[in-house]
Amino acid sequence: MVSKFISKLERSSSANKSKIILALDLSSELKKNNKAEWENIKKQLLKQAENILNKIGDKIAGVKINNQLILPLGVYEYLPDLIDIIDSWKLPVIADVKINDVGHTNEWIAKHFFNAGFDALIANPFVGWKGGLDKVFETARAYNGSVILLVYMSHPGASEGFHQIVVDSQTGFQKPQFLIFAEKANIWGADGVIVGATSPQIIKSVRDVLKKNILILSPGVGVQGGEGVEAIRAGASYIIVGRSIFDSDNPSQTVSLINESLNQI
Amino acid sequence: MVSKFISKLERSSSANKSKIILALDLSSELKKNNKAEWENIKKQLLKQAENILNKIGDKIAGVKINNQLILPLGVYEYLPDLIDIIDSWKLPVIADVKINDVGHTNEWIAKHFFNAGFDALIANPFVGWKGGLDKVFETARAYNGSVILLVYMSHPGASEGFHQIVVDSQTGFQKPQFLIFAEKANIWGADGVIVGATSPQIIKSVRDVLKKNILILSPGVGVQGGEGVEAIRAGASYIIVGRSIFDSDNPSQTVSLINESLNQI
Repeated sequence: MVSKFISKLERSSSANKSKIILALDLSSELKKNNKAEWENIKKQLLKQAENILNKIGDKIAGVKINNQLILPLGVYEYLPDLIDIIDSWKLPVIADVKINDVGHTNEWIAKHFFNAGFDALIANPFVGWKGGLDKVFETARAYNGSVILLVYMSHPGASEGFHQIVVDSQTGFQKPQFLIFAEKANIWGADGVIVGATSPQIIKSVRDVLKKNILILSPGVGVQGGEGVEAIRAGASYIIVGRSIFDSDNPSQTVSLINESLNQI
Repeated sequence: MVSKFISKLERSSSANKSKIILALDLSSELKKNNKAEWENIKKQLLKQAENILNKIGDKIAGVKINNQLILPLGVYEYLPDLIDIIDSWKLPVIADVKINDVGHTNEWIAKHFFNAGFDALIANPFVGWKGGLDKVFETARAYNGSVILLVYMSHPGASEGFHQIVVDSQTGFQKPQFLIFAEKANIWGADGVIVGATSPQIIKSVRDVLKKNILILSPGVGVQGGEGVEAIRAGASYIIVGRSIFDSDNPSQTVSLINESLNQI
């Protein structure tokens, strides 16, 4: 059975002819102990997000929000308003909060975000199952939501962990960490994984291990979007693009250009 | 030079004759789209926290807050009020948010929490340095704040990641993940590490590797507090206790009993 998140994503991708998930990584510094200023800046962030969606909401497949925007907006303050705006564009929305806590806390984190209206959550498989991510998957099922696992991040230091060679305690065989994580995605029932667009070869290896129905979402695509084409060719399902779009002079045109290059594949 | 966080922690530990860091893991479900109810529940959570501190604020060494409480309170809504209350007890406060994102987002997360008044942040070393945790340490320095690294968590599934045997790509030597993380704490300049009280043997191994001035904070201590004694004997500097205290019939008495057992060591 296809999850609510995936069917929503596929519907908007097809309607808007796009494989882009917008990373809404907006930022605005907030000073301590100035409640009036806080209110203003929260409202500005919300307005900024609304303006971006007004320009490109009908040209993307989904939206991803991370702690850069979640923390200042507040899960039970302005975040539900932002999700309502995204909903009005019929786009699915991912909470990129890289959950990696203990079970009872993970359960609350997941409840808070699904309560606030997110369709999917990103979690870090490194913390393991029992008393760890088991509660995230349980909570996701209860809310008909999805879990997406980190398999390989896109920053330079990512190799320190995600590319470690790990010795299997039972067989003695050696295996790269990212393939162990891809196998956990299969076993635990994730609906998607994150693999940086920066390593098409790793996208290929992960695609080979991953069950067919699990999506690969690829962040780390720069302004030219060339890595995006390579990522999709290597097996990525969607690419995640943020600042390259909304920091460009013409976000609508930038999105159209990326969509064109990806739709030619 | 001793960091602001450590000197604050040592001062309160000595004044209050305690090695307990209180994990303020309060929870209260919030429903979607009911702003009036949200307000009430946020205020109730704040009141609940204040009541607990009124009972035991002069018998503990510090406070740790995680996303279970941070997300509903809101970083720029009620969280600064909670930190003011904790400040009035002269206790240091740790944001247990297990930061594990990419650099620019990590930087914002760290800014938001230090802005809100936290003395220290917990981060996950698995995501590596460059374009990862480098920004957390940089931001901490700018705010005169501290970084605490996860070295071994306390839930059953923690062994899946933290106890992996990793092959060194240069030497071919094999090493447990938690010792790799302890070495990163030394190199990166962490002020503390988290090692679950559930494995005194691992606390010992980590203590052997760790620079003298880096603290070991041990979560996972149950209501009897026996694991706490073992953890401190093995080399832990402080123990982290939460629900065992505030879910007990008499939190003040529970804290006193744990303090007594630890002070006998």
